[in-house]
Amino acid sequence: MSIEIHPIRGIPEIAPGDDLGALIVDGLKASQIALSDRDVVVITHKVVSKAEGRIEQVSDDRAYRELAEREARSILRRRGDLLITQTDHGFICANAGVDRSNVAEGWAVLLPVDPDRSAHRIRRHIERLTGVSIAVVVTDTFGRPWRRGLVDVAIGISGLPSTLDLRGESDAQGRTMNVTEIAIVDEIAAAADLVMGKADEIPAAVVRGLDLAGTGRATDLVRPPEEDMFR
Amino acid sequence: MSIEIHPIRGIPEIAPGDDLGALIVDGLKASQIALSDRDVVVITHKVVSKAEGRIEQVSDDRAYRELAEREARSILRRRGDLLITQTDHGFICANAGVDRSNVAEGWAVLLPVDPDRSAHRIRRHIERLTGVSIAVVVTDTFGRPWRRGLVDVAIGISGLPSTLDLRGESDAQGRTMNVTEIAIVDEIAAAADLVMGKADEIPAAVVRGLDLAGTGRATDLVRPPEEDMFR
Repeated sequence: MSIEIHPIRGIPEIAPGDDLGALIVDGLKASQIALSDRDVVVITHKVVSKAEGRIEQVSDDRAYRELAEREARSILRRRGDLLITQTDHGFICANAGVDRSNVAEGWAVLLPVDPDRSAHRIRRHIERLTGVSIAVVVTDTFGRPWRRGLVDVAIGISGLPSTLDLRGESDAQGRTMNVTEIAIVDEIAAAADLVMGKADEIPAAVVRGLDLAGTGRATDLVRPPEEDMFR
Repeated sequence: MSIEIHPIRGIPEIAPGDDLGALIVDGLKASQIALSDRDVVVITHKVVSKAEGRIEQVSDDRAYRELAEREARSILRRRGDLLITQTDHGFICANAGVDRSNVAEGWAVLLPVDPDRSAHRIRRHIERLTGVSIAVVVTDTFGRPWRRGLVDVAIGISGLPSTLDLRGESDAQGRTMNVTEIAIVDEIAAAADLVMGKADEIPAAVVRGLDLAGTGRATDLVRPPEEDMFR
């Protein structure tokens, strides 16, 4: 099984109230991509948040910091202007996901209130418009405590399992495998980022060739506090 | 720019001393993949370690635990049989990367001594055999402290930058971006895992369509202690 990843071009700058699903379908046409059943449409949360009106004015650095603190459920670490926070969704990330890049000067983009619900709504809308059965992953760009550089991860999903649980399956030697719950939707998010870039106007991509279906939620990926050794 | 990811099939079970580069080239032929310049060959470290003789007998759970402790430079956390360790390379991962899945009963696979050097050697060998200019990424499967499930990351690279540094570039609104050092090789590793699986006999894949070149090392991704807020 091979996989293809195609950028969706032609999606305009998004404003509150825009019909993001329809604009993605327009972008697919402009990119000459005909959606197929089981395609995964990966969308950076930034356009989802903008369409949902999850943007706020931040007049200066102080206003930005206050907004990030307000969006955080708790603050794990603080270093200069960087807060490591847990959001209301449970995600642990910098500055509660509040971001000032790729938005107009003086504004910040917040995370969607319920990114799994956003993914589900966009999925159903694209399915209605196109007649094909797809999955949707909404992404954000997170740091990692011990590895430099950022990677895209899934913060909202619809139509997919959150993990592939291979525990109990046999490996190639017939041994039962032990450590094998794969965060497949994070791998999909990372893969899609390879064609999206950060400065380009490519907020979405199609990942084709996976044969996955499920009803997981990205919040399933939040490690419960009792398993967390590093908070 | 679209990306394709193709599994490399037909690579046999690897034993110490095997010519892994040649076996990958055979696998490419068996998979009807003709390598192109700039292709990235992604290889799970397990076959690299086996070819390099980095396997050891572990008679029981205690011997396994002792081996993991010996391979660790330091132990960050301990919970039951699970050690969170830093390896000599600097990577922070479970059980110093020592793994008993996909290896014969009674044996464990260690990490390569110098995975960047392994990647470089395999790259040069495949380039000599095929006459094309490629990059190589050697991967392992790591957990994350706050997110459930495992993802593949790069532990050795050759012919690529370790990160894409977009700091100083402008975003779509012309603003200078702040948080934009992308761990591109970890995203490549995660993407390739989508076609490899864990129980299948597919230890390598080709990622095609990226236009990257560089001389980074996977150890560049190790966050220096002075930046680390969670050790």
